[in-house]
Amino acid sequence: MERIPILKIGPALLVTIQVDMHDQLALTLEEDLTNRIVATGAKGVLIDISGLEIVDSFIGRMLANIASVSRMLDAETVVVGMRPAVAITLVELGLSLPGVRTALNAERGMALISARLAALARDDAADEDDEDAAPGA
Amino acid sequence: MERIPILKIGPALLVTIQVDMHDQLALTLEEDLTNRIVATGAKGVLIDISGLEIVDSFIGRMLANIASVSRMLDAETVVVGMRPAVAITLVELGLSLPGVRTALNAERGMALISARLAALARDDAADEDDEDAAPGA
Repeated sequence: MERIPILKIGPALLVTIQVDMHDQLALTLEEDLTNRIVATGAKGVLIDISGLEIVDSFIGRMLANIASVSRMLDAETVVVGMRPAVAITLVELGLSLPGVRTALNAERGMALISARLAALARDDAADEDDEDAAPGA
Repeated sequence: MERIPILKIGPALLVTIQVDMHDQLALTLEEDLTNRIVATGAKGVLIDISGLEIVDSFIGRMLANIASVSRMLDAETVVVGMRPAVAITLVELGLSLPGVRTALNAERGMALISARLAALARDDAADEDDEDAAPGA
C-alpha cells in the first residue's frame, strides 16, 4: 500500500482510511489531497474513519493538519464514521480535533458539504444583488 | 483489518478496496454488502479498485459474485478506478468480468447509477400513465 485512494464524489473528495497509517503514508495522503483539491476545485474533504478501531495522537494530528491545509484552499474537512470508542479515547487523550468537523456517517457529511456550498452560492447571489443595486442607490 | 467499510453516498453504496483480500475478508465484504443493500434499499454498488496494483482471479471472482448477488437485489454494480495494467492483466487471464459494469472513476460510476435511477423513474411514470389511460381505452 503506497498511497490511499482519493475519490471525487460530487463537490467533495472522499478518503476511506482502512490501513495503519505510518509517517510516510500520512505525508503522502496530505500531499495527494492538497494536489487534488487544487486540481479539482473540490469544496469539501470527507475522511471516513469507520474502519479504524484506534485513533492515536499521530492520526489525530494528521486529521487536524489535513483540515488546516484544506481550509486554506477553501475546502471544508469533515471526519465521518467515528466509532464511539474512538470518540471516548480521543477525549481522554485531550485531542478534541480543533478545526475538524465531524458527522455521523458519509451521507450526513456529504449533506454538510452540500449545505455549505448552497450557503456560499446564496452569499454570492446576495453580493451580486448588492452590486446591481448600488448604481441605482 | 476485520472488515472493509461500506459507505452510503446518495443512492449508492461505496467500497474502496485498499488491502489484500483474503478469503475471509472477501466473504465478509460480500455478506456485509448484501445486508447493506437490503437495509438501505441502495440501487447501486460502486467498488473502487484504484488502490489495487494486481487483480487476480480471486478478486475477479469476488467482483463477479458481488455483481451477481447485487443484481438479484436490484442494485447495479460498477467497478471504478481500474488501472490500465490491471485491465491488461485481466484480459490476459481471460477474466473479462461478465455482468460487471465499469467506469473510469467514482464520479462517472455515480453518474451511471444516477442515470439508471432516472431511467427507472421514467419507466415507472410511463407505466402509471398507461394504467391511467387503460380504463378510457
